[in-house]
Amino acid sequence: MDINGTHYRTIWLEDDGWSVGIIDQTLLPHEFSTARLTSLEETCVAIETMQVRGAPLIGVTAAYGLALALRSDSSDDAMFQAIQRLTATRPTAVNLQWALERVRKAVEKLTGADRISAAYAKASGLAEEDVSACARIGRHGAELIYEVAGGKKDQPVQILTHCNAGWLATVDWGTALAPVYRAHDAGVPVHVWVDETRPRNQGAALTMWELMAHGVPCTLVVDNAGGHMMQKGLVDLCLVGTDRTTRRGDVANKIGTYLKALAARDNGVPFYVAAPASSIDWSLDDGMSGIEIEQRSSEEVTQVIGRNNGEVQAVEIAPPGAKAANFAFDVTPARLVTALVTDRGVCPASREGLFSRFPEHAA
Amino acid sequence: MDINGTHYRTIWLEDDGWSVGIIDQTLLPHEFSTARLTSLEETCVAIETMQVRGAPLIGVTAAYGLALALRSDSSDDAMFQAIQRLTATRPTAVNLQWALERVRKAVEKLTGADRISAAYAKASGLAEEDVSACARIGRHGAELIYEVAGGKKDQPVQILTHCNAGWLATVDWGTALAPVYRAHDAGVPVHVWVDETRPRNQGAALTMWELMAHGVPCTLVVDNAGGHMMQKGLVDLCLVGTDRTTRRGDVANKIGTYLKALAARDNGVPFYVAAPASSIDWSLDDGMSGIEIEQRSSEEVTQVIGRNNGEVQAVEIAPPGAKAANFAFDVTPARLVTALVTDRGVCPASREGLFSRFPEHAA
Repeated sequence: MDINGTHYRTIWLEDDGWSVGIIDQTLLPHEFSTARLTSLEETCVAIETMQVRGAPLIGVTAAYGLALALRSDSSDDAMFQAIQRLTATRPTAVNLQWALERVRKAVEKLTGADRISAAYAKASGLAEEDVSACARIGRHGAELIYEVAGGKKDQPVQILTHCNAGWLATVDWGTALAPVYRAHDAGVPVHVWVDETRPRNQGAALTMWELMAHGVPCTLVVDNAGGHMMQKGLVDLCLVGTDRTTRRGDVANKIGTYLKALAARDNGVPFYVAAPASSIDWSLDDGMSGIEIEQRSSEEVTQVIGRNNGEVQAVEIAPPGAKAANFAFDVTPARLVTALVTDRGVCPASREGLFSRFPEHAA
Repeated sequence: MDINGTHYRTIWLEDDGWSVGIIDQTLLPHEFSTARLTSLEETCVAIETMQVRGAPLIGVTAAYGLALALRSDSSDDAMFQAIQRLTATRPTAVNLQWALERVRKAVEKLTGADRISAAYAKASGLAEEDVSACARIGRHGAELIYEVAGGKKDQPVQILTHCNAGWLATVDWGTALAPVYRAHDAGVPVHVWVDETRPRNQGAALTMWELMAHGVPCTLVVDNAGGHMMQKGLVDLCLVGTDRTTRRGDVANKIGTYLKALAARDNGVPFYVAAPASSIDWSLDDGMSGIEIEQRSSEEVTQVIGRNNGEVQAVEIAPPGAKAANFAFDVTPARLVTALVTDRGVCPASREGLFSRFPEHAA
């Protein structure tokens, strides 16, 4: 998408034809800076330190990391060591292993320069696949926005989102925000209410930044506000991403998503989840019992990171010695999800709904 | 309650017999400091800047503010202007108007020094009334905790609270936390999950501080977490305060309360609201349409205050120029409230329930 009029992706091949450019997301929204990855190790550190984050983007970055590794040593041994090293960066990210497996299969029968160029080609191919899947989600989801817009004359369609499921989490377009960009670019007036998304504030830091950079009207609110806004008719629809979708349509997403889904149901506001095929776990039915919820460090809760006089700092918000718990995700049951927006179209959040779009997975 | 072994209230008459001492709550939990109010204007600023906050405490502070105003000009004109000025400081809390009305009635037929001393006497009387009302809420509410404790053997009763409805929000004891202190002091094991309560973080700053100071086990969580915790059976009951309760039992409280009430209902967790008589607006039925919701400055959302190397600082969490909206309260409809804990006992959140405890208000 655009950053003040210039088109960017989150990851790209540099003009030298082999090194990899990324946006350093750890500095956002305080500083826009790009970084250049020239080795396996630099790529691993970029993933570990969350210079790149978001499951789709992590997968593509790892694929490029493997290409960089092969460029310096294209042997089988080096390839397997690189895969091990990359897999260890974010051990829970399924997408990462999936992307590495795709590259490995594409290059395993090749050697030398052929292997290297095939690895780069596959990494680029995965990036393009991600862009086109997100673009399709954008087209399908935009129809939902247009339906609302039809009844609002020239008033903007009011969309609430949680966390960052925007283009910064993918290669381009995003998942939940793809329909928003699509509608905005088509001249349909939209306005996004952005949950700040404590504890890591991805809404305040990343979603606000990318929407503002592209010129989409948006307003930051605290995570507590959405219920009241829905009571008052200030939200036409909710649109969020998913880290994992079960085959019956339960959705694991950033902590707090479930609360917004409850408020949407209580106020008759549609609650849509943008779910790329890669987020669907076809092996799992019940998300409430079947998805383990990651617990992260208490410092993410007791501290907040921001800028003060141009410097990025962490401030303590709790008394010294305060205990904190940090549940990273919650599960929104399918009954609260109005529909899933997949890259193959909109469908009910149910087994039947998902099978209608992905018949190859029907039992 | 005690702070490091010394008993404090949140507000008191200073030894000079006319100026008013308060705890400056804007500095907590980073610094414990008191302030001295010597005029109407200082009192209004203390309320507006939330050096004092919490509906019951605001009411008592406003009463003292009116006494301070009369001390400098005891005319009817000055009195009405002071009431107007004080009423405008915080539009949502009903206690403020109620307290001012009580003082006005106590002094309207008096003049000069008699009027001034009667105003001080009434302000002190309101403070004592608040302490005893909170103590009664503590006794009644503790019974609800004991009921749960009976089924938990020696496991702590898990209580979720939002914002600060502790002794810092009142003159002493608190409303929602009074039953917690009562149970804890009686040796019944309790543990409190404390919502941080963005944007002003009263949970992280005030509730954690006062519970830790009293030795009550407590854990800070982000506002997003409560739904997940209720899904996972980690919460036995919710207990929150109220800024305004309508006669049918709708409850206006800190933004985000409604979301927790929805999660409690969805998971069969009791949702109790500690409602002192002073919080009840007998003139109002429908809280959804009838209660004005205060909107505060966007800086409270785009900035977070905390300490860094011993210094209290505000850090910016959003991109420069980010728009933010800041709704301070929401309304939880009576249907989501399991019961009200009033100073006259526990009752259903309904007209019949409230009239059973306050028959003098029955039509």
